[in-house]
Amino acid sequence: MSELFAPGTVWLVGAGPGDPDLLTRKAEKLIAAADIIFYDALVGRGVLDLIPAHIERVSVGKRAGRHSKDQKSINDLLLTAAHAGLRVVRLKGGDPAIFGRTAEEVAHLSASGIYVKICPGVTAASAAVASAGASLTLRGSARKLTLITAHARDGEILDIDWGALADARSTLAIYMGKAAANEIARNLEKAGLGRDTPVLIVENVSLPTERLVQTRLDLLAVATSAAVTDGPTILIIGEAVRTQQRVEGDGSNAGFSKIICSSTS
Amino acid sequence: MSELFAPGTVWLVGAGPGDPDLLTRKAEKLIAAADIIFYDALVGRGVLDLIPAHIERVSVGKRAGRHSKDQKSINDLLLTAAHAGLRVVRLKGGDPAIFGRTAEEVAHLSASGIYVKICPGVTAASAAVASAGASLTLRGSARKLTLITAHARDGEILDIDWGALADARSTLAIYMGKAAANEIARNLEKAGLGRDTPVLIVENVSLPTERLVQTRLDLLAVATSAAVTDGPTILIIGEAVRTQQRVEGDGSNAGFSKIICSSTS
Repeated sequence: MSELFAPGTVWLVGAGPGDPDLLTRKAEKLIAAADIIFYDALVGRGVLDLIPAHIERVSVGKRAGRHSKDQKSINDLLLTAAHAGLRVVRLKGGDPAIFGRTAEEVAHLSASGIYVKICPGVTAASAAVASAGASLTLRGSARKLTLITAHARDGEILDIDWGALADARSTLAIYMGKAAANEIARNLEKAGLGRDTPVLIVENVSLPTERLVQTRLDLLAVATSAAVTDGPTILIIGEAVRTQQRVEGDGSNAGFSKIICSSTS
Repeated sequence: MSELFAPGTVWLVGAGPGDPDLLTRKAEKLIAAADIIFYDALVGRGVLDLIPAHIERVSVGKRAGRHSKDQKSINDLLLTAAHAGLRVVRLKGGDPAIFGRTAEEVAHLSASGIYVKICPGVTAASAAVASAGASLTLRGSARKLTLITAHARDGEILDIDWGALADARSTLAIYMGKAAANEIARNLEKAGLGRDTPVLIVENVSLPTERLVQTRLDLLAVATSAAVTDGPTILIIGEAVRTQQRVEGDGSNAGFSKIICSSTS
């Protein structure tokens, strides 16, 4: 890997949803070859434990309502480290391409002449339905998958074309959907999506504290309030998550009921 | 891993886009612990090379225009192997949750009392933009990501709501989009998407034969015909793939110009 990772280069690396076993082999190699690693609040503890002790690690976590570095500070840190000739890994929760602000960091670094590369990762939506034994698409009935983020801080949730999203033959995955759950459900219902549309709520995807809740659109807000604590939460809405059978834990979460609330018949 | 992989269990495992380094650590462990592995045509050769020699491997590849096993035969093979008490891995290209027919296999096996689990993978859209140094979402201008498949054999391409897809503030990823490229471009333009909307065409995502083509919507059909050979091809459409800077190879494709055709200004 070292020949792929020249000094002064920055790799933006997807850390996956949290479980260190969901890291790619490539990400693992890049982490081992780095001189310094900047990581998000969403990077799993188990992933950080894979970082060899001699490698410097710097938290640049941004998380709603907590003190954190702004994007410009992160850009500057990456630039300084690269200019110092370090092998820099910027470790991002999930997949860098999906709601990861990757374009900003690539543009900033490239404009300064830094060589930037990207290692993709497993995104939360994929891992969330895997835990539930489900898929995001279904031949014939869920042929389209749409991903949005409802991160309240962005204010963008207020400006969404709900009509385009209220499609009974699609699956809708909403990242960071907890705070806006009530508004999401109300808007989708108003736009015509059936009240009994299945919803899968997954908190702390792929972590030992993962929590899966099977519910339906008209009960989404109640189920989210009742069942979800303060971990990152993804909502998956559509026929693809109408589970027929109950799913057991995979051993990593032994003894924890993964579906703690079932309001579908 | 062996305690997580009881005899008679089936794991549906995402093999990622092709590069064996984009396999997850978990997938690698499951492959090593399997007794038999059934794999798709889309699983990369490098991934297959990771399978230890003593493990039985069975191709169940389905690929447009080639002889292959139908879904029912695959279901039956998996069931027979599980009933025989084998540790079964069903290796699928990409992520099992995205256009992987995973629900059919889960339903069939579960109905027969077989314990099925899913290991997610990196999907082609994530790896395609990573190769291009781009993202699938952009804060402010591409806040939504939609994935569809245009696999001609399904006939479903004819029955898509193009109006909902022709959104200048979204990114659209079309799996298996090569054969229908002309129809896709025509329909999106007719539905109002700008003729100069950026398009990234990626063939053989993440493989040594990967080919990236940067073009625009009105040139999509020409660029696809001219530049793409017979490998699986994904189309990424939207502002998120308007690359400002040229991207170099990552060493694995050394000496191969990754952007072979640029028709954007």
